[in-house]
Amino acid sequence: MAEHFDTIGIIAKTTDTRLAEILRTLIAHLRHHRRRLLLDPTTVEQIRDIPDGEAVQREDIAREADLAIVVGGDGTFLAAARTLVDHGVPLLGINAGRLGFLVDVSPQEMLGRLDEILSGHYMEDHRRMLHARVMRGEQEVAQGDALNDVVLHIRDVVRMIEFDTWIDGRFVHTQRADGMVVATPTGSTAYALSGGGPILSPDLDAVVLVPICPHGLSHRPLVVPAGSRVEIAVNENSRTRAQAALDGQDTIDMEPLDRIVIRSKPRKLRLIHPPGYDYLQILRVKLGWGEQP
Amino acid sequence: MAEHFDTIGIIAKTTDTRLAEILRTLIAHLRHHRRRLLLDPTTVEQIRDIPDGEAVQREDIAREADLAIVVGGDGTFLAAARTLVDHGVPLLGINAGRLGFLVDVSPQEMLGRLDEILSGHYMEDHRRMLHARVMRGEQEVAQGDALNDVVLHIRDVVRMIEFDTWIDGRFVHTQRADGMVVATPTGSTAYALSGGGPILSPDLDAVVLVPICPHGLSHRPLVVPAGSRVEIAVNENSRTRAQAALDGQDTIDMEPLDRIVIRSKPRKLRLIHPPGYDYLQILRVKLGWGEQP
Amino acid sequence: MAEHFDTIGIIAKTTDTRLAEILRTLIAHLRHHRRRLLLDPTTVEQIRDIPDGEAVQREDIAREADLAIVVGGDGTFLAAARTLVDHGVPLLGINAGRLGFLVDVSPQEMLGRLDEILSGHYMEDHRRMLHARVMRGEQEVAQGDALNDVVLHIRDVVRMIEFDTWIDGRFVHTQRADGMVVATPTGSTAYALSGGGPILSPDLDAVVLVPICPHGLSHRPLVVPAGSRVEIAVNENSRTRAQAALDGQDTIDMEPLDRIVIRSKPRKLRLIHPPGYDYLQILRVKLGWGEQP
Amino acid sequence: MAEHFDTIGIIAKTTDTRLAEILRTLIAHLRHHRRRLLLDPTTVEQIRDIPDGEAVQREDIAREADLAIVVGGDGTFLAAARTLVDHGVPLLGINAGRLGFLVDVSPQEMLGRLDEILSGHYMEDHRRMLHARVMRGEQEVAQGDALNDVVLHIRDVVRMIEFDTWIDGRFVHTQRADGMVVATPTGSTAYALSGGGPILSPDLDAVVLVPICPHGLSHRPLVVPAGSRVEIAVNENSRTRAQAALDGQDTIDMEPLDRIVIRSKPRKLRLIHPPGYDYLQILRVKLGWGEQP
Repeated sequence: MAEHFDTIGIIAKTTDTRLAEILRTLIAHLRHHRRRLLLDPTTVEQIRDIPDGEAVQREDIAREADLAIVVGGDGTFLAAARTLVDHGVPLLGINAGRLGFLVDVSPQEMLGRLDEILSGHYMEDHRRMLHARVMRGEQEVAQGDALNDVVLHIRDVVRMIEFDTWIDGRFVHTQRADGMVVATPTGSTAYALSGGGPILSPDLDAVVLVPICPHGLSHRPLVVPAGSRVEIAVNENSRTRAQAALDGQDTIDMEPLDRIVIRSKPRKLRLIHPPGYDYLQILRVKLGWGEQP
Repeated sequence: MAEHFDTIGIIAKTTDTRLAEILRTLIAHLRHHRRRLLLDPTTVEQIRDIPDGEAVQREDIAREADLAIVVGGDGTFLAAARTLVDHGVPLLGINAGRLGFLVDVSPQEMLGRLDEILSGHYMEDHRRMLHARVMRGEQEVAQGDALNDVVLHIRDVVRMIEFDTWIDGRFVHTQRADGMVVATPTGSTAYALSGGGPILSPDLDAVVLVPICPHGLSHRPLVVPAGSRVEIAVNENSRTRAQAALDGQDTIDMEPLDRIVIRSKPRKLRLIHPPGYDYLQILRVKLGWGEQP
Repeated sequence: MAEHFDTIGIIAKTTDTRLAEILRTLIAHLRHHRRRLLLDPTTVEQIRDIPDGEAVQREDIAREADLAIVVGGDGTFLAAARTLVDHGVPLLGINAGRLGFLVDVSPQEMLGRLDEILSGHYMEDHRRMLHARVMRGEQEVAQGDALNDVVLHIRDVVRMIEFDTWIDGRFVHTQRADGMVVATPTGSTAYALSGGGPILSPDLDAVVLVPICPHGLSHRPLVVPAGSRVEIAVNENSRTRAQAALDGQDTIDMEPLDRIVIRSKPRKLRLIHPPGYDYLQILRVKLGWGEQP
Repeated sequence: MAEHFDTIGIIAKTTDTRLAEILRTLIAHLRHHRRRLLLDPTTVEQIRDIPDGEAVQREDIAREADLAIVVGGDGTFLAAARTLVDHGVPLLGINAGRLGFLVDVSPQEMLGRLDEILSGHYMEDHRRMLHARVMRGEQEVAQGDALNDVVLHIRDVVRMIEFDTWIDGRFVHTQRADGMVVATPTGSTAYALSGGGPILSPDLDAVVLVPICPHGLSHRPLVVPAGSRVEIAVNENSRTRAQAALDGQDTIDMEPLDRIVIRSKPRKLRLIHPPGYDYLQILRVKLGWGEQP
């Protein structure tokens, strides 16, 4: 049964002043629909005249909202997803004029789409996320979630790192490369794609490991079940410093011999799309598949 | 509970006379184990002194064998798999001296491995296969199975074909290319890999679509759930003749506007491996991952 | 010193009736400029009322024209180039509405561009072509030229060929693949690009060898000086039939053990462009470099 | 006419104690041949009992040596080449047991090879090097040489930079990527190859631009004449910090809007090889072309 989304959080891209007008239109429309609003600081900084109680922190949205509307680009959406996933808050993405894989509603169609969604006509789409832990010996030194990808990468200098990979405790290989991307289907069209990875259909329960500039020419992307435990350890031959990145946004400096352990999160992220949402249509537009050179 | 494999079929690579000695050793050993043998014509042509009742047709092996031992290369194994899958006969592969992805037991270790397997110590591995139908309008003009891949490809001239792809009835794209490989995880290390596809873990329930020399530079391999219905139609702009190939062995000439409809077979192929079988170890050896250039 | 192009041949794409109007406009304009016209049969079939002496064969254009104007696509241009190169006739390409790498003048700008060119304001661009000979033992069984590429490729079935490559008599490698493209800089943006080859700047005196779906994962495109003698021989292990193709248009069936010997032609093809021609601009448009996904 | 190499410099890989024995054998052999020796500090630190005058600085080798022998890996050779090229000193490379593209003489064959070379039987091979300048406005803030490559790359975080490329003053494209490799033929088998670049024959006078993980899927390696002036500017949309690296060894931090200007050095590096040197043989060994998976 469709939900009514009585309490709606609004999260915006920071420092993009072009969004103020979209935000004001959006807020007015939701008030007209008599929804209770929770405005993230990113939204508050762009508009004036906020009634008491509407200006909140993102944690309040996580705890109280029935729906979070993200206005901005895919990067804004990724950050919001990492905060909200553990609270089960579904997300709807509105772009600032340029279609994204995650922010798939345009400002032009925003109001009509919202009317449909608020009256219960929408599609719900569940996406896998990853949980990564950086281990130093037996100690966890950092951890976090990712919707797109967990990346192990060189830092500071342009010189390969050497690392070992295990899947479910079974040794895969020792590899010298600039790094390794472990991506969800959602992330398969982001950095993993630039690294030569395949596209994973969003309904495929899998993760893909894509080596970045591997020294060995026979290394290829590897797709494994989403339930796999992927462990990557910078090995003792590696003299180059490494870092880990979650969605390219949270960065963790790694020490020699540190390991990243990556698992799918049990709880999936809920995305809300307008009726008629077509992932393949977005793919065609974003990758320019209509246009043959 | 482990099976005893009382009746064992033996299928060999044709025209490879180096196999005669391996076959004789194998047969003597199985007789010593008091198994009933069913020898495929490919085996019979390489050895003499066949007792009555042992020289059979492959269909007899399909119907009566508890286990089929394939001696040769991956190509021999593929052909045997297509014949045996519908009868649920498990397959064990012995190579002729060069490790294969499917023929993973070497002649040197063959006897010891068989002793283990016949005494009930073995690993069973279930692999997806594909079923392809070539449709002309509403009529099926050809059909068949594949363990590795179903390939749509140009024929006769080196000029692209143009085709449309649908997944579960949803349009993916129109593409101009030399062809398209639709591969199982088993086939992901065969032709699909040469075409730039990823490696799919054998326990991933998926198929991968790999375009061959696509004209559009933004086309990438696409991995979808194994349950998907993949349909590819040579379209009316295509002036080049096309063919379909099952495991690169059975070839079907296609007419303009013909379509290939590909589904996973409900019944999986049963592979028998010796204890300690490690897919990743085979991958490392076959792809030379130990050796960095 | 600029030429005046007194006698102009006109060659059109066959069976494209949309070209009739462009051809009539073009011919009227050249008559206005008082040029002598030589109309190829491809042109004659699309327009009526041809004065005596204007309807000629392509060989007459090769012998007598000071300039050949090709109206159509890159494919039409390639075929014309192979006929005209040995006579030193320069070519100008007009497309039928869709920019090509070789047919770079649009119908809309055609008249203005011609005025510039006929008054001596143009750029001349010299492109390497290849000459290929198919050898059976010591005997030449076929030969021909190519502006884009000479391709060795599988035929009939989707199964690799095995071949050996030499450059200037030095052994490069034995390779199993679907084929090999040997391309000029001009051809580097055609089939070679689909096969994963690099783009060669038109002013680079080089050819590139691009393997098509190589079985060995460490094979890469190889760029060698244009003066190199490239020899590729289908070897005795190859059970699959092969073909050679010149610009994807002329096809030669090959026997086992046949060899292709490829050299750059000493005489370069002369291309005429309007002033301001920018190869990189065409590249950006054709490859969609402006549009980031 | 062959040279006699009367004064010979010896440069070793630092901190590799396995080299001490090779160095002692080498030095004894050269003394036996009555050559004057100039030992780099990297050599001196590994052996004892150095006669007066033999322990020198690398600059002394640059000024006075007729030949420099580099003992170590390709990395050691690259650093030596950058110091010696401007003095015209030829280099000979001896590896520490693992074949390199530049250190092509093994310790086992070292003495015999040296006898040949010192008696005038050798091959001389001239390789292009690059000169890079980092410009901030009109001011040069850093500069240096590279034998393999000049790389523009992200620094600190795993997030693309955006940059513009010009060749000979003509705009090529704006690109978002992890970076760009500009490589010589010598460098085409190093980092550029990991990034998906082609192999350039060492006798091809060209450089190749290879984008690293480009965001736009239609970007491809681009090969241009060695005489080209390549300019790459981090543009104002790039919020990620960048660095430049020469042969992956010298690193230059870049500011927003900094530009790298790259030209081939007029003077080529002289490499000395034993007679029978075969670049293609090294390529086959290093890339494992003999071994089909």
